[in-house]
Amino acid sequence: LVESDSSSAAQVVVNSPVGKASDTETIKSLVTGANVLTFEHEHVPGDFLRELISQGVSVQPHPDALLQAQDKIIMRERLTDMGLPCPAWRALDRDTATATTQLHEFIAQHGPDVVVKTSRGGYDGKGVRVVSSPEEVNDWFDGVEAGGPALLVEEKVPFSRELAVLVARRPAGDAVTWPVVESIQENGVCAQVIAPAPNLTQDEADRARETRSDSGETNIFINELAMRPHNSGHWTITGSVTSQFEQHLRAVLDLPLGDTAPLAPWTVMANILGSNRETLTDALPQVLAQYPNAKVNLYGKEPRPGRKLGHVNVSGSDLEQVLAAARGAAALVRDQD
Amino acid sequence: LVESDSSSAAQVVVNSPVGKASDTETIKSLVTGANVLTFEHEHVPGDFLRELISQGVSVQPHPDALLQAQDKIIMRERLTDMGLPCPAWRALDRDTATATTQLHEFIAQHGPDVVVKTSRGGYDGKGVRVVSSPEEVNDWFDGVEAGGPALLVEEKVPFSRELAVLVARRPAGDAVTWPVVESIQENGVCAQVIAPAPNLTQDEADRARETRSDSGETNIFINELAMRPHNSGHWTITGSVTSQFEQHLRAVLDLPLGDTAPLAPWTVMANILGSNRETLTDALPQVLAQYPNAKVNLYGKEPRPGRKLGHVNVSGSDLEQVLAAARGAAALVRDQD
Repeated sequence: LVESDSSSAAQVVVNSPVGKASDTETIKSLVTGANVLTFEHEHVPGDFLRELISQGVSVQPHPDALLQAQDKIIMRERLTDMGLPCPAWRALDRDTATATTQLHEFIAQHGPDVVVKTSRGGYDGKGVRVVSSPEEVNDWFDGVEAGGPALLVEEKVPFSRELAVLVARRPAGDAVTWPVVESIQENGVCAQVIAPAPNLTQDEADRARETRSDSGETNIFINELAMRPHNSGHWTITGSVTSQFEQHLRAVLDLPLGDTAPLAPWTVMANILGSNRETLTDALPQVLAQYPNAKVNLYGKEPRPGRKLGHVNVSGSDLEQVLAAARGAAALVRDQD
Repeated sequence: LVESDSSSAAQVVVNSPVGKASDTETIKSLVTGANVLTFEHEHVPGDFLRELISQGVSVQPHPDALLQAQDKIIMRERLTDMGLPCPAWRALDRDTATATTQLHEFIAQHGPDVVVKTSRGGYDGKGVRVVSSPEEVNDWFDGVEAGGPALLVEEKVPFSRELAVLVARRPAGDAVTWPVVESIQENGVCAQVIAPAPNLTQDEADRARETRSDSGETNIFINELAMRPHNSGHWTITGSVTSQFEQHLRAVLDLPLGDTAPLAPWTVMANILGSNRETLTDALPQVLAQYPNAKVNLYGKEPRPGRKLGHVNVSGSDLEQVLAAARGAAALVRDQD
């Protein structure tokens, strides 16, 4: 199911009908005869998925799991119930007056700066705002009153860096993780991923993989979950024995999971965020000549400022060289400073 | 351009019109707006390709090069002219009586066994016959008289093994080769490929890459050429920084060629030649559980005895284990002894 005839998936997948995730008739025809229904984003109506399950369709991940990625309040409640490490947080009431009081109290306790988030619909920094007073989210309060998604507030963690752990689990139960990676954000959007995360102790890596923060000098907090192949896992396309996309198919088809070992000491993924070029492939002669090890992935999208248009993977044994090559190749495709 | 709606390429390529390589109207519509026209087999009419070139279409490889892979007599003449190492050979006259005499003479000089080949149309052992008398190719003489492809005869080389050298060259001129591999044939068909070829000296590898046989203890002869991605290069899909398919696109688009370094000490490719299974994917739960490093590529073809239905790649540092895993995984998909 694709959003339009020209969307990235439609350009490479035979028989990709156009429709919305809420277009129940199209999805019903899509799942007829299919082994499994799965997703590349979380914005899928759970009630409809449950109806399909009742009709015998294998829906992976299950909507009960998907819900943790759809709604940040439900995710935080679940993680807190499980005793997993989260920043201090609270859901805000749907009534603006009550929410304002709650937010004042939270700022008094955890401020001066706190992070307000919409519970649903955010991505790539959207739906996330650092504030020091309730007035700064007045527009969001209006949205809630108008029936929009509820809000939550979180402690602004003085974090040193963002790590990402990619996990694959099949219905039979076994799960695997790849090496812990570092995600370098620019303006709330992932700019590069370094695999494995540099200067991470074995204990820190183990705690990140096992989502424990109960020992060690470094605190690890869970920021968010996604129930799908993720930008932070694109490095695995060329950097791991099993890519996240192959693993996704193995997992949702309940097949044995593949080896997640890295293929090189270091792999760096650099996103191509916007470009001054009209035709990105014009960059290829220069990029491929200058960076013979760069694997340039272009998504076939129209360039728009800041838009994720593709990514570059580079592997090697010298992190500085690998990082410079991935950044340099992405910069050439962007044709920006 | 695909042979039918159900052909392998049609299953994975958006907008793949159905037609024959001789279907000039379909090909003309295919090349309209395309950067380049290229091929996955040699059976393409050269005159038509020259017409397209005269109309400004980039045809890669050029029909003058493609001809060496289309006609074994033309190939042998060209290689002999260039002083490159070939077995003793001669073209046979189209007249049966003359050809019979020529073949008798060749057998007297190089026999008792010699190899007769059809100059065009052969593949996977088809069009190749080991004979010790002209009578054994009487049916082929009839075919020649009826206007079929001419025949050639070659010395039966007492070869110890078959090596394959994969070369990519772009119109700008630069060319790269991958490590020399060993191709293990069963019944005239490639069963496994080992990359790199075991027990090959650096001198032998250099001579194979440079097609020299003028020194050293081992003689190296050129058996045949193909002007396209080849079965002997499927190991590069997972075993090399740049796969032969990515390199093919770089080459025909005249882009800088990619790094051909191997990703592991050993990679073995095992062909899946026929299967007792009706649905090959039924093998996946067992294959993937038993061989977590196996990369199973299925071509979406109907099983037929001996048909190439797919291949398995396995990489690692222990050749015996890698070879056993690739063979074992392919055998499980075949479900045959």
